[in-house]
Amino acid sequence: MNLTHAAELIGTFVFAISGSLAAGEKKLDAFGVSVIAFITALGGGTLRDLLLNLHPLLWIRDGSYLAAIMAGVIFTFLFYRFIKPLHRTFFFFDAIGIGLFTILGLKKALLVAQLSPVVAVIMGMVSATFGGVLRDVLCNEIPLIFRREIYAMACFAGAAAYLLADKLLHLAPEVNMLCTMLLIIAIRLVAVRYRLTIPWRPLGGNE
Amino acid sequence: MNLTHAAELIGTFVFAISGSLAAGEKKLDAFGVSVIAFITALGGGTLRDLLLNLHPLLWIRDGSYLAAIMAGVIFTFLFYRFIKPLHRTFFFFDAIGIGLFTILGLKKALLVAQLSPVVAVIMGMVSATFGGVLRDVLCNEIPLIFRREIYAMACFAGAAAYLLADKLLHLAPEVNMLCTMLLIIAIRLVAVRYRLTIPWRPLGGNE
Amino acid sequence: MNLTHAAELIGTFVFAISGSLAAGEKKLDAFGVSVIAFITALGGGTLRDLLLNLHPLLWIRDGSYLAAIMAGVIFTFLFYRFIKPLHRTFFFFDAIGIGLFTILGLKKALLVAQLSPVVAVIMGMVSATFGGVLRDVLCNEIPLIFRREIYAMACFAGAAAYLLADKLLHLAPEVNMLCTMLLIIAIRLVAVRYRLTIPWRPLGGNE
Repeated sequence: MNLTHAAELIGTFVFAISGSLAAGEKKLDAFGVSVIAFITALGGGTLRDLLLNLHPLLWIRDGSYLAAIMAGVIFTFLFYRFIKPLHRTFFFFDAIGIGLFTILGLKKALLVAQLSPVVAVIMGMVSATFGGVLRDVLCNEIPLIFRREIYAMACFAGAAAYLLADKLLHLAPEVNMLCTMLLIIAIRLVAVRYRLTIPWRPLGGNE
Repeated sequence: MNLTHAAELIGTFVFAISGSLAAGEKKLDAFGVSVIAFITALGGGTLRDLLLNLHPLLWIRDGSYLAAIMAGVIFTFLFYRFIKPLHRTFFFFDAIGIGLFTILGLKKALLVAQLSPVVAVIMGMVSATFGGVLRDVLCNEIPLIFRREIYAMACFAGAAAYLLADKLLHLAPEVNMLCTMLLIIAIRLVAVRYRLTIPWRPLGGNE
Repeated sequence: MNLTHAAELIGTFVFAISGSLAAGEKKLDAFGVSVIAFITALGGGTLRDLLLNLHPLLWIRDGSYLAAIMAGVIFTFLFYRFIKPLHRTFFFFDAIGIGLFTILGLKKALLVAQLSPVVAVIMGMVSATFGGVLRDVLCNEIPLIFRREIYAMACFAGAAAYLLADKLLHLAPEVNMLCTMLLIIAIRLVAVRYRLTIPWRPLGGNE
């Protein structure tokens, strides 16, 4: 168990809590909440691995991911009264989660032979954001990240920065990872603080 | 054509009828109803095989599954007036279907090398329940099984019981299959009869 | 770059525009619109390749598809005021798109060894229509093509006609492709013009 693995498990745990909280508002039963927690945490990485044909899937090969999700669901069950008011804190954890998952997803994609940098960046973004997309689809809502303050764009920027720093500056991977993760988190915090969005307002549209 | 295959085709046929009935209430056209019937019947097994990288997919390799679905759709079309009132009967068939698909899905997953028992149990559950989940997503509803009386939990319990009986009691596979299928059906019938649910009510939540 | 490739890129471009227009009505941000454009254009082909285990996926291997989508999104952004009123024209482009994608999807499926003709026809249909299905699911609507005037049925008819003409008449592939594409476009145009549908009205149902 190295640092990357530990970071991934913490990210999984945090996303499982965020999924449990979202599902809890939909009056699901205990099973439904667990499924939503699972999909929020591992849906993005699973989709990436299916698209890239990377088998066996992470959580099939290594049981600790499922354990981290169970822990997240039980943690939410036990400490709901303390977690629920922590909106600000959790938004912060979510920012850490997407920063982590973007760069880890990007690095995993880069291991695939002959993958173009653009596709690798997309895969980093998919890893971080599509768990939330699938969660929202199952909860019958238009995915939040398609409308929310700069979210996937932050992942995109961080993943692109990682690639550029790697190719142009030859930054050491560890330093690069840390810096670009912080970049993603920073973009996201600033975007939420100042309500920055990138609206879609085509030229000539009457809105 | 052995017994397992026959059982699978019957399960596919029954699920196709249940999908056609659900789709029929959404004012879809004949194509839409056929697609929903297909996804209800084969969506769970297809997702399982994609996650486990088992190719070619069952219904791609063997045309009898598509034939069973066509038969289910046509059967619903012809005998709608007789089927529609049979709510109770169909709920019973559905219980048989999920019992069957859970254990068959579990057994298929167990053939994959080095799969952990927990993942195998999850795959049994996915086989039986995710067709219905995809059906509900396409019909724009929050999946029923995330809210309904013990449904996926019954599949989970049956699959876990199969594994335990296999490892600890060394039960003959045929006997074990039959008993655990009956267990799933029994749990489901009892849960519906007495409206048993496992609500998600976290400690400190005000509901 | 041959003719088929050029045709595919044009189809991708057209579908990306149609996806951008649909997404634009949902008040998404620029990222959300791009994702919906991507999924509308490449979702069907991606699902086909996942089901048939054809890796690497087209847009992962060849960057020109992503470029075509970006071009479609930017084109919509710049020329919205001119595109928006062109409902009739775009419906026409969409008809061309599905004609093209159906036959190209069918031909790709036929390259897979030992695939039954029925499954190949289904794969042609999936290629052309499931991008739109996924778009509608993400936009939280019941997929339009499940209710609309003969749409997927047109794809089905064209794909079946291609196969028949190939096996029975030994038509040259180029001629066959052109004729069956025109057939799909013609069916679709006639269906919309005369509002033809194939409603699902089971015998004995009271509608």
